[in-house]
Amino acid sequence: MVRKLVLLGTGLIGGSFALALKRAQQVAQVVGVGRSQANLERALELGVIDAASQDPAQAVQGADLVLIAAPVGQMQPLMQAIAPNLAGDCLVTDAGSTKRDVVGLYRAHLAAHLPACVPGHPIAGSDLSGAAAARYGLYEGRRVVLTPLPESAPEAIERLETLWRLCGAAVYRMSPEEHDSVFAAVSHVPHLVAFAYMNALLEHGNVAQCLDFAATGFRDFTRIAGSHPEMWRDIALANREAVLADLQRNVGQLQALIHLLEAGDAAGLTHYIERASSTRVAWEARTKGLSKP
Amino acid sequence: MVRKLVLLGTGLIGGSFALALKRAQQVAQVVGVGRSQANLERALELGVIDAASQDPAQAVQGADLVLIAAPVGQMQPLMQAIAPNLAGDCLVTDAGSTKRDVVGLYRAHLAAHLPACVPGHPIAGSDLSGAAAARYGLYEGRRVVLTPLPESAPEAIERLETLWRLCGAAVYRMSPEEHDSVFAAVSHVPHLVAFAYMNALLEHGNVAQCLDFAATGFRDFTRIAGSHPEMWRDIALANREAVLADLQRNVGQLQALIHLLEAGDAAGLTHYIERASSTRVAWEARTKGLSKP
Repeated sequence: MVRKLVLLGTGLIGGSFALALKRAQQVAQVVGVGRSQANLERALELGVIDAASQDPAQAVQGADLVLIAAPVGQMQPLMQAIAPNLAGDCLVTDAGSTKRDVVGLYRAHLAAHLPACVPGHPIAGSDLSGAAAARYGLYEGRRVVLTPLPESAPEAIERLETLWRLCGAAVYRMSPEEHDSVFAAVSHVPHLVAFAYMNALLEHGNVAQCLDFAATGFRDFTRIAGSHPEMWRDIALANREAVLADLQRNVGQLQALIHLLEAGDAAGLTHYIERASSTRVAWEARTKGLSKP
Repeated sequence: MVRKLVLLGTGLIGGSFALALKRAQQVAQVVGVGRSQANLERALELGVIDAASQDPAQAVQGADLVLIAAPVGQMQPLMQAIAPNLAGDCLVTDAGSTKRDVVGLYRAHLAAHLPACVPGHPIAGSDLSGAAAARYGLYEGRRVVLTPLPESAPEAIERLETLWRLCGAAVYRMSPEEHDSVFAAVSHVPHLVAFAYMNALLEHGNVAQCLDFAATGFRDFTRIAGSHPEMWRDIALANREAVLADLQRNVGQLQALIHLLEAGDAAGLTHYIERASSTRVAWEARTKGLSKP
């Protein structure tokens, strides 16, 4: 049971966590912190939070659980602000999409509190954002990756695992390095490739007509290109090393494809496309149950 | 009213055209031609076609409408085979995803029949294929692009437009060059970029774990990477010139992104992502009604 949950960032991720714990009757009070007064008012109206604040330091007083669900680029001042006011038993976690940099922030700003800190990443992305997007059941059947610190107390880790399981999630543990390499490959780089594709399309001489005839393939392929610029800039910078390695691999594969096309190499093209297609088809078959956001 | 419709290629595209005309009571008999006996039997069972044949030359005898709905790479032998047996009034069209090359095939193989030939492209892609995927309503609210020849008789074009409208589609006319440039940009290149992305992922040191944690963003972004290899090889080769120009633009944009990341240029990255994101968001707002396949 959580007495007082503070959301530092009251959007889809934090809001849906609060709603899930409320439905499970595992939280007495939820305080939402955010920069947008309009968004906080919406969260209050929707019953996502019970109280709102624009002052993180004040909000965390008396809290026994803090979820930092703000973009990674905003976490540093939040950690600095709350550090002096955290109760010793207050579990601090986050929902950052990158983990090596966030682990560095915990070490730098919450050094005295590390046994109660457990970095995490719920895998429930969406192009939607804001408190109005929060919903019950967002985490049902989803995965949550925790990247505990060597200092994290086993009881803190277990408490957080239990809470995420109450939200319906399956909980995994990884090292921060492993996490960042995996999510660069299957999340961060797809977003960046989709942004690059949209920008390449904008260089087309007839972009208005192109967009006019874009259909369902385009729709799905570019859905993530509509994602939040500030958030994805921060993720790309935070996970720069792993992201750059994957982007280089993408450039290399595009250049290989260009060479096959220039050579008119039908057999090579078949092989190239079959490798990609069979991997995707096999993945689809394995993950049939994966729900849409 | 169509007396005898012959589908050269009895899959999603041809089958759904036949079903739509049947429901509109606009066709008396549908003959399906295909290479796979099992697929033709399935089409007969499902009532998509009334008779099956593996001989295109024989099948088109007495036909007043032929839809070539086979992959573009298979169209040449089909046109050659049917040319001697076409009735003078038999309207011939196709559903090829590229048009410059298909127009060339009409000229080369159906030179005596051009007034009754109207190349076309129904925009209703899907990663599904085969007669079992055919369904009523596939073309409801979809677009069909016709690229008539200078020789195409106005009555032939109008007759085909009427039939596609009876299927629920909106009909547009373009030049073959315009068509190929637009669809390279919004259809062919997204598929190729998705294939390249999958192949880059296969170079990751830990691909099994990556695929294990791939979520909904990955799912949508790579859906088209599961598409039919033979079909997309043919499209890429057929539309090579336009496709290569777009692929080069994608490589250029990825390299620009890599430079921004290497330089840690946060402002440049924000601008880069905002341009892509705002374009995608505006497109989404304009096309809200676009249905899923």
